[in-house]
Amino acid sequence: MMNSFVIHGDIVFCPYKKQMVAIEDGWVVVRDGIVELPYIELPDSAKDLPVHDFKGKLVMPGMVDLHIHAPQYAFRGLGADMELLDWLKNYAFKEEAKYGDIAYADKAYRIFADALYHSATTRAVVFGTIHRKSTQLLMDRMEESGIVSYVGKVNMDRNGAEDLIEETGESFRRTERFIAHTAGKYRNTYPIITPRFVPSCTDELLSRLGWLSEQHELPVQSHLSENPGEVAWVGELCPDSRFYGEVYDKYGLFGNSANTVMAHCVWSTDEEIALMKERGVFIAHCPASNMNVASGIAPIRRYLDEGLRVGLGSDIAGGHSTSIFTAMVDAMQVSRLYWRHIDQSRKPLSFPEALYMATKGGGAFFGKAGSFERGFEFDAIVIDDSVLPHPQDLTVAQRAERAVWLGGDKTGLIAKYVRGTKII
Amino acid sequence: MMNSFVIHGDIVFCPYKKQMVAIEDGWVVVRDGIVELPYIELPDSAKDLPVHDFKGKLVMPGMVDLHIHAPQYAFRGLGADMELLDWLKNYAFKEEAKYGDIAYADKAYRIFADALYHSATTRAVVFGTIHRKSTQLLMDRMEESGIVSYVGKVNMDRNGAEDLIEETGESFRRTERFIAHTAGKYRNTYPIITPRFVPSCTDELLSRLGWLSEQHELPVQSHLSENPGEVAWVGELCPDSRFYGEVYDKYGLFGNSANTVMAHCVWSTDEEIALMKERGVFIAHCPASNMNVASGIAPIRRYLDEGLRVGLGSDIAGGHSTSIFTAMVDAMQVSRLYWRHIDQSRKPLSFPEALYMATKGGGAFFGKAGSFERGFEFDAIVIDDSVLPHPQDLTVAQRAERAVWLGGDKTGLIAKYVRGTKII
Repeated sequence: MMNSFVIHGDIVFCPYKKQMVAIEDGWVVVRDGIVELPYIELPDSAKDLPVHDFKGKLVMPGMVDLHIHAPQYAFRGLGADMELLDWLKNYAFKEEAKYGDIAYADKAYRIFADALYHSATTRAVVFGTIHRKSTQLLMDRMEESGIVSYVGKVNMDRNGAEDLIEETGESFRRTERFIAHTAGKYRNTYPIITPRFVPSCTDELLSRLGWLSEQHELPVQSHLSENPGEVAWVGELCPDSRFYGEVYDKYGLFGNSANTVMAHCVWSTDEEIALMKERGVFIAHCPASNMNVASGIAPIRRYLDEGLRVGLGSDIAGGHSTSIFTAMVDAMQVSRLYWRHIDQSRKPLSFPEALYMATKGGGAFFGKAGSFERGFEFDAIVIDDSVLPHPQDLTVAQRAERAVWLGGDKTGLIAKYVRGTKII
Repeated sequence: MMNSFVIHGDIVFCPYKKQMVAIEDGWVVVRDGIVELPYIELPDSAKDLPVHDFKGKLVMPGMVDLHIHAPQYAFRGLGADMELLDWLKNYAFKEEAKYGDIAYADKAYRIFADALYHSATTRAVVFGTIHRKSTQLLMDRMEESGIVSYVGKVNMDRNGAEDLIEETGESFRRTERFIAHTAGKYRNTYPIITPRFVPSCTDELLSRLGWLSEQHELPVQSHLSENPGEVAWVGELCPDSRFYGEVYDKYGLFGNSANTVMAHCVWSTDEEIALMKERGVFIAHCPASNMNVASGIAPIRRYLDEGLRVGLGSDIAGGHSTSIFTAMVDAMQVSRLYWRHIDQSRKPLSFPEALYMATKGGGAFFGKAGSFERGFEFDAIVIDDSVLPHPQDLTVAQRAERAVWLGGDKTGLIAKYVRGTKII
């Protein structure tokens, strides 16, 4: 059993939204890549297993990124000077059009996959572009990285740019071909149905994509209620729908038959929130992006309290950092501003809540991932936080909190496991 | 002339609030530590000077941190779960009390000064604690770092903690002694008058500190209108003042006779803003801190448009990162939320505006610092941004923007100059 071992270190994970577990000098027994249990003392039954010894280091679940645009990685940190719809036209669409050129895509996606590999992220839900071959190339790179990912060829048959648009039938056929080429091909990389968002997709296209999701049992990713201008536009484009999410729902793209993740949900109405809850739709909370393109602050406290499924997304390149540690910090920060400036009945998010979203919350999109509970796939990061010196004594829980707040992309990251395989 | 040379590289600086200068393959002539001028081509008159060649690297003014608490560095990244007044009592005061122990202070301040040394910061305005000797130790460490700084022994004669409080006369005498020991002692390190904030200082103490500032021609640092609870408390403590800032003004601590920097100014009233403008008070905008302890978003667009003097502060440990790059990003981000959620007449901050605040804006507190204009002291950082790979061509201005957004504390920092001396 290659993937059976015991990992030793200061164990931190978050099985419940409000409760973090921290075990100083603890052990996690992993058998065939699956967590048996975390232990305070090494049990006799595991004494024959090899030990991966990280004494004094932090061992935490790998980070889950529920929303990231691979082709936009190239221009992260540039152009945060417009609102969403102008930003798409002037930055995102222009960059994405380049991915029709396979040589450019190869260069850019190598940089992207290398960055994710070196980050604390172990699972990601990824947008490609409308280009089938480039997106398959992206999947090859993601597979090589060892990270588990869903990757989507994007669909757009209206309101794109001259060089970034598809005819409806062509968009559908390309997606069929994309699924045929990629489903079952990889160990850790899977296709996902990816309508860009309602303004980019006709009813006809959405309907066909819903059919593909159902037929192939494929999950779905898209965007929802990110920006007031976008929401108003969807209202004009789809006058028969009562709210934005209902458009996806009408075509079976809203958790009807498969896991669905919707990015943002900053401006969701009560009805939309109720339907997301009913359908078990995952919300990818992307706080940096929501600041950078001036979308606003999503009501995450409400979503958590009402039992919706919430994870975090970097949303490169609306967001500028791939770090889910940074997304946790951003989520905590904007929740404080939400409380202060918008609604004092919505309490700021705590550190355990942020960690929960970043691990088990988002991990649920992949099944049993993001925790060290029995039966979970063992994804982990090991952090040597001695690179962040301090004069006073700290508990393990404090060290984990501090590593996240101060850590950024990869500070002190010395090991990384995905499904029980050590990839760093 | 040790400090006479030409620096060669991709030069970026911000002489005006709305206008950044970017010179690809440019030159800055420095004579005796002072900028002569930046040039597109090396002038004949400078051909005898040694060349510091950073071709292809970014050369930018050093970052200025207008507000940082040295003793709080130990607990940055911990305890962002309370509002200001509780946070002070439960975290800040408890940590600061430890600095009565000179051995602890030595250990902690070495970590602090080392962190600042390795960061992009070249100038800082620093809070110590109420302890005179520890604060002098801090100044020794700051001087060794090569960074230019003002450092204050903090004054508190009410509402402190049992182990963090001074009797009024004692506070005054200690400060006199502190000035006697430190004024003129160092090349780059200066004392500054530091009443913690109005709730910590009686009228009697404020009055004596104002007198010290005037007599010794020393600048002043304090906190102002950070949090609604604090502002209300000041109203109760000082019923004769129309607004918070007026209390400082009454005692000559509001730019009356010396440079004064007030941290935060999130909740300043129209009258307070008018008086800050009249007195030329510097505002230290600390966006991360204002998120972390849920203070709110300061109206920086208004301050800039109305011609107030604004720089950036890390506010360790209300803020968690020493990076002024991060403070720039935070400032741009929260300005977008201010526009979205509070007042759509206040346009989000641009990148040049953020860079201006981080360099020339805050630098003005020190005189001619923070720009590559004629007569400015030459503080610079050199960044090798090739550590941030990208597939497309970028301009120098884009590379600078990207280095700030993606850079964090010290990414790619390969050289640092202060007053013409290369310290890294």
